[in-house]
Amino acid sequence: MNFLEERILKDGVIREGNVLKVDSFLNHQMDVSLLDKIGEEFHRRFSHKKITKILTIEASGIAIAYAVARCFGVPMVFAKKAKSINIEGDVYTAEVESFTHKNKNQVIVSKKFLNCDDHVLIIDDFLANGCALQGLISISESAGATVEGIGIAIEKGFQYGGKSIRNLGYDLQSLAIVESMDHVSQSICFRNNEI
Amino acid sequence: MNFLEERILKDGVIREGNVLKVDSFLNHQMDVSLLDKIGEEFHRRFSHKKITKILTIEASGIAIAYAVARCFGVPMVFAKKAKSINIEGDVYTAEVESFTHKNKNQVIVSKKFLNCDDHVLIIDDFLANGCALQGLISISESAGATVEGIGIAIEKGFQYGGKSIRNLGYDLQSLAIVESMDHVSQSICFRNNEI
Repeated sequence: MNFLEERILKDGVIREGNVLKVDSFLNHQMDVSLLDKIGEEFHRRFSHKKITKILTIEASGIAIAYAVARCFGVPMVFAKKAKSINIEGDVYTAEVESFTHKNKNQVIVSKKFLNCDDHVLIIDDFLANGCALQGLISISESAGATVEGIGIAIEKGFQYGGKSIRNLGYDLQSLAIVESMDHVSQSICFRNNEI
Repeated sequence: MNFLEERILKDGVIREGNVLKVDSFLNHQMDVSLLDKIGEEFHRRFSHKKITKILTIEASGIAIAYAVARCFGVPMVFAKKAKSINIEGDVYTAEVESFTHKNKNQVIVSKKFLNCDDHVLIIDDFLANGCALQGLISISESAGATVEGIGIAIEKGFQYGGKSIRNLGYDLQSLAIVESMDHVSQSICFRNNEI
C-alpha cells in the first residue's frame, strides 16, 4: 500500500452513491507535504519521458499539477472552465461533463500555451467517467501536442473512465485505484497497483 | 523594482479597459519558479506572524496559495465557487462578484477546515474592487478565525479594493501595485512599494 492509499484509508470518508470525500487533504483543504510527495511520485514514474508541459483543469487539479511541474521544472497550464474577458479568441475548446457537479462546462486553453512541439503530462486529482481527461486529451490533440502520459491521484476503478483511456493506448497511471468501497462499513478495496 | 514588477513589465500585456493580462506566467500558464519566489516573498513578509492556515479562492489563487503554504508548512484551504454534491451542509458562505467574469458566485468553505483557533493568511493573485477578498475576510470572521494578513500578487491601485481593505485595518501587502497603465504605449506605472 502506498502513501496515498494509506492516507485515503486514514482520512477519506465514503458517502452513499460512491462518493469518496478526500476534502480534508486533497481537494478543499490541502496537505502541502502530501502534494509534494504526489509531485515527486509522478516525477519518478514519468521521468524517463521528455515532458515540456504539465496540463490540468481547474480547480482541484491545479495544486497537484503545480507540485508535479516543480519536479519537472516545466510550466503548468490549466484549462479554464468559463470564457473570461481576459482570454482572447484563439483558444482550444472541449466540452466536459462533471461527475461531481452534474453539469457541463466548456473548457478552454489559449493557443499560445500549447503547440505541436509540446510533450504533455496531463495531471488531475480524480478519474471517474473520464470526461475531464477526455477533454484535456482532445485539447492536446487539437494543439498537435504529444500526450506522453497521464497521472491521476485517485481513480475510481469501478467506473469506465480509466479502462477506456488505457484501451486508447495512453500511459495512464493512478496512484490509488479504488476497486470498491462501502459506505456502511467505511471499507475500501484498492487495485494492486505497485510500480 | 522587485522580481514580480520586472516580470509584469517583461511579459504582461495591457488591453483596453484596464485589463492586465499575465496569463503567460501567473493565471493560465504558470511559471513554477516564479510561483516559488512569490511563496518565499510572502513568507518573508509575514513570517513574524503566527499563521496556521492559508486561505484562497479558486481557481487562479490556488497555485500561489500552495506556494505560500509550502513555505509556512501549514495547510491551504480554497473557497469553492459552486456547491458540489461532495460538500456537505455545514459551510461558511459569501457572495463574490468577479471583475473578470462579470458574474456573481456563492463561495463556500467547509466549517471543518476553519475555526476560531485559526490564524489565517489570505492569498490571491489579483486585487481590483476587492470583492473576492471581502468574501474571504467575511468567511474568516464567520469562523471566528483571526486574519493575520493578506498577500496579493498584483493589485490595481487605481481601483478602490486595496484602499478600503487597508482602511479597515487589515495588513494587506501586494507585491506589485499598478498605479496606472496605458494600452496604447503598453506602459505601466507601479506604486513605490519596497519593504
